Amino acid sequence: MRGMARSSPALVVGSLGLDTISTPFGSVSDVLGGTSSYFSLSASNYTDVQVVAVIGNDFPDEYRRVLESRRIDLRGLQVMDGRTFRWAGQYKFDMNVAETLDTQLNVFAEFHPRLPEDYRQTEFVFLANIHPSLQLEVLDQVRNPKLVVMDSMNFWISSSKDTLTDVMRRADIVLLNDGEVRQYTETANLIAGGRAILDLGPRAVVIKKGEHGALLISRNDGVFVAPAFPQEEVQDPTGAGDSFAGGFVGYLASRGDTSPEAIRRAIIHGSAIASFTVEDFSVRRLERLTTAEVLDRYATFRHLTQFVDEGLEVGA
Amino acid sequence: MRGMARSSPALVVGSLGLDTISTPFGSVSDVLGGTSSYFSLSASNYTDVQVVAVIGNDFPDEYRRVLESRRIDLRGLQVMDGRTFRWAGQYKFDMNVAETLDTQLNVFAEFHPRLPEDYRQTEFVFLANIHPSLQLEVLDQVRNPKLVVMDSMNFWISSSKDTLTDVMRRADIVLLNDGEVRQYTETANLIAGGRAILDLGPRAVVIKKGEHGALLISRNDGVFVAPAFPQEEVQDPTGAGDSFAGGFVGYLASRGDTSPEAIRRAIIHGSAIASFTVEDFSVRRLERLTTAEVLDRYATFRHLTQFVDEGLEVGA
Repeated sequence: MRGMARSSPALVVGSLGLDTISTPFGSVSDVLGGTSSYFSLSASNYTDVQVVAVIGNDFPDEYRRVLESRRIDLRGLQVMDGRTFRWAGQYKFDMNVAETLDTQLNVFAEFHPRLPEDYRQTEFVFLANIHPSLQLEVLDQVRNPKLVVMDSMNFWISSSKDTLTDVMRRADIVLLNDGEVRQYTETANLIAGGRAILDLGPRAVVIKKGEHGALLISRNDGVFVAPAFPQEEVQDPTGAGDSFAGGFVGYLASRGDTSPEAIRRAIIHGSAIASFTVEDFSVRRLERLTTAEVLDRYATFRHLTQFVDEGLEVGA
Repeated sequence: MRGMARSSPALVVGSLGLDTISTPFGSVSDVLGGTSSYFSLSASNYTDVQVVAVIGNDFPDEYRRVLESRRIDLRGLQVMDGRTFRWAGQYKFDMNVAETLDTQLNVFAEFHPRLPEDYRQTEFVFLANIHPSLQLEVLDQVRNPKLVVMDSMNFWISSSKDTLTDVMRRADIVLLNDGEVRQYTETANLIAGGRAILDLGPRAVVIKKGEHGALLISRNDGVFVAPAFPQEEVQDPTGAGDSFAGGFVGYLASRGDTSPEAIRRAIIHGSAIASFTVEDFSVRRLERLTTAEVLDRYATFRHLTQFVDEGLEVGA
């Protein structure tokens, strides 16, 4: 079966920006950030990646080269007069929660995605957490999607829920964190919340739970639970979710496969890649990540969840 | 191998009481509760259970019969003049958190565990979350422990940490919830916290994470992650942790086995039993639980975590 699989590129439309981050382990200023950076560096371990995003003319060449040194195609990158999108945040004792200190949209405020002609044929599409109306603009440009995976965020859930629901109706897989699922569905229980989103049309909902791993709720495949990699020292959690998405979509695109079995494996790949991202600030760990390391960590995930069966009789 | 295993009884020393509980799904008054109830009904699916606890002379005969109708030996039950231990609590939107409304120790305030002579030979011992000095009194009475599993709670961690540490040094497996591990070790990261407890001497730490499952951190077996059963409607979370302990210790005792593989399976059994407990108020679901149901749910746990491997090459 594997020999028959055709590797496809993955398309991401999302933010590209400069981050200023403080954690208990250190701080960095104006480093490479944004969903598209983490996603594309992660997915490039598996397949070619096409990026549609916007930067200002202050975006460092050095960061462009970080991306171009991998299998990342930047022809969809728009350069506008003005400053690049910036985000500043900090993490305290509980590294699960980022406190946003500052967000400057800058050129991102004027962004409308324009896909180069050949990107419109791309079959594996990731809609990062941009405004849902921009997500719809992307869907109106792609001609041949085999798998549309979408993310969103608390701000759009509260301010643009109807438009966001329109995107969900057209997506194959909805990728959200646990808080976003609870907020969108107004349901405390994640399984019930996931099923409510399935009712809108998607085949599957993948719920990212940070240190608690990820949960798949699937129309055809029931529930699947993936652990997070057990890490004693998380340096910087920024980008973990976007890296998960990159490993997830990148793996599926590399296999040209959207079967339930492939989706389960893709979640493990997403978890594996995300576990590297948080080991260092910004995209530093992804820059030096090797295929051998990815494979090794994937194998570790099997050991994490395996329990050998003996006979099942009880009450002996 | 299984044919060689010898089934041992399990001993529990802990509270037995009357609970008054309110959840979004209903409320009940003076129902059978306490760690020993949930533990023993759960463990009795696997092996004979010996209970050391105290009740007042107001304890209903009907509740005694609920326990005696299973493989539960109540010769270690002390009956004192006075009222039985009572707890009242409520759960709101977030069913992970119980709010205690009232605790009346009553006869429990005067409790000192006294093990019947033959209980002192019991090899599988569970020390429920009673005062650590009472846990030490139990350890001074048992003569032949093969596996000592201990629980505790936030109140003892803050008020009697040194004595609690003495118990941990003599335990084989420490069973705590995630908040208790963070509180005891003053460490946000659960893996680091678990390892800090291993440094005291136990072979393994099992961290109960409610809807996020359980985490094993083991001296010889690394980390193991078990999911919680995906449940859309939890009626009453009371006793989930004690039921987990009952399935966990009951399974190991029934096999006479403390190997790393058995401990992993025991965690799945604990998770399976706990998933039944929360389906109804008090111990009602445990009262009508059948072996076939336990086995069926155990099998479901495999499907929850399984990802079929294909070749591991990436970047094709």
